[in-house]
Amino acid sequence: MSASILVVGSVAFDSLKTPFGEAEEILGGSATYFSVAASYFSPIRLVAVVGSDFPDKHREVFRKHHIDTGGLVQVEGKTFRWKGEYGYDLNEARTLDTQLNVFEKFKPVIPKSYHDSDYVFLGNIDPELQLSVLEQIRRPRIVAFDSMNFWIRGKLEAVKKTIRHVDILIINDAETRMLANEPNLVRAAKRIQEMGPKTLIVKRGEYGVLMFNGTSVFGAPAFPLENVYDPTGAGDSFAGGFMGALAQFNEIDERAFRRCIIFGSVMASFNVEQFGLQRLSSLDRKQIDDRFCEFKALTHFDV
Amino acid sequence: MSASILVVGSVAFDSLKTPFGEAEEILGGSATYFSVAASYFSPIRLVAVVGSDFPDKHREVFRKHHIDTGGLVQVEGKTFRWKGEYGYDLNEARTLDTQLNVFEKFKPVIPKSYHDSDYVFLGNIDPELQLSVLEQIRRPRIVAFDSMNFWIRGKLEAVKKTIRHVDILIINDAETRMLANEPNLVRAAKRIQEMGPKTLIVKRGEYGVLMFNGTSVFGAPAFPLENVYDPTGAGDSFAGGFMGALAQFNEIDERAFRRCIIFGSVMASFNVEQFGLQRLSSLDRKQIDDRFCEFKALTHFDV
Repeated sequence: MSASILVVGSVAFDSLKTPFGEAEEILGGSATYFSVAASYFSPIRLVAVVGSDFPDKHREVFRKHHIDTGGLVQVEGKTFRWKGEYGYDLNEARTLDTQLNVFEKFKPVIPKSYHDSDYVFLGNIDPELQLSVLEQIRRPRIVAFDSMNFWIRGKLEAVKKTIRHVDILIINDAETRMLANEPNLVRAAKRIQEMGPKTLIVKRGEYGVLMFNGTSVFGAPAFPLENVYDPTGAGDSFAGGFMGALAQFNEIDERAFRRCIIFGSVMASFNVEQFGLQRLSSLDRKQIDDRFCEFKALTHFDV
Repeated sequence: MSASILVVGSVAFDSLKTPFGEAEEILGGSATYFSVAASYFSPIRLVAVVGSDFPDKHREVFRKHHIDTGGLVQVEGKTFRWKGEYGYDLNEARTLDTQLNVFEKFKPVIPKSYHDSDYVFLGNIDPELQLSVLEQIRRPRIVAFDSMNFWIRGKLEAVKKTIRHVDILIINDAETRMLANEPNLVRAAKRIQEMGPKTLIVKRGEYGVLMFNGTSVFGAPAFPLENVYDPTGAGDSFAGGFMGALAQFNEIDERAFRRCIIFGSVMASFNVEQFGLQRLSSLDRKQIDDRFCEFKALTHFDV
């Protein structure tokens, strides 16, 4: 039976501009993309904070996906806002504006009913807060972790302290090199594995994913798409698909990790095909399974 | 039975500098890397030009690999020289100096005994010369083609005219986008397929390869390496491994293309592990087949 996933991260209003269009104050944030992607596979428990300006139509998105919002705290003030822009290559966002607002004083409190969560995803927030989440709950089966250059540069010791308690790191290649202080990705991965996590999943955007799990390595390309409109949330959708599938199958081994990486890649590929959550929030399971099979066709070769 | 491959391209003296060491006037050039890589699979017929300074020790490399140098013309003057430098990311060479020398007046003449070649690789030279090669020979079974931004920018019409007669384009992602004038890789590939070649193989360096063959797409990661010393010739080693294996199996279908792309990736992965031709020219077939199997282990997942 499918196990529950506890996710802690940000819920935000995003304003986006790409060469193909723009959108104002749409629902975004790492925990949002993660939750919606993961909800196709497993029950989700969301811990985040929003302001008094958070509208009911946004809550409707979580309801539609049966996401448990018992840990979504609403406080006086404005919701976290992010404004970003992409060029034609769509590889990196240029941040135009960040307003932390209520997120600035966010101290995640995990509801008692979530303490038994078997799967935990620590979204990209202050590493000290990520550690405080782990201190509040019983020992889960799998803890996965995301971060960003801002925390690796600014709070390296806290990041290192937190990941000692983490099973799976899901970060991008630049963050991998930065965290390990090593330009070669294979050596960087080994160094990070020595810091604690047995498994490192390196996200490489349009180039796909590499997983280092113990001494084994797995590589998968990203799904080649004719229409890429908005890469916002691709990394979180990947993590959501990966963790969601992992909790659904509820098996922890190399074989399961590999299959779940493909489910993660499937969810990321859907996510970038339209603006914001449009595509990601309107899928059905058959579309997901079909694209999983297309991934097999994409990568298979005979020995 | 293994078919012969005709390759036309450059033989050069390379001077290289990477963060891990340097080398002066070592044997290089696109046709050299291609030939040595392909020689592990099939008989090679090399057409290129060198100067009167070309030493016998370099010819020894070709002899060792049973490469037919009946088309390697030696003329009065100096051999083509290239000088380049790589930074820590090793992704792109900075050209410090190019001396075309005898290569400037190179007009490839294909010896009569080569006219029946079933497999032809047109290395990265002037597209008009590439076309002149095809005019000299009988219709081969497969013609593959490489080029570079210099020719795509400077002689676009000649490139387009030549590739009308080509089956397989083997170029990198920036060249793909430039040739199609389209930033999206999938759409760029379709546009290039409309120009003539049914098959486009896009080299993406450390990120691997994408093949567009008719309506099918195949993706493979590059082999993750702990020690990358010198990326010079990686693209040509890939093409050599691909074409060599293709001519050896002598089957032209999607299944063969996919397997041969992995053999190409294997040869490129060996090539970058040491300076110049050191590693590439000292392999045995068992090492190649072993790494092919490691590629399977790298990319396999269960449905």
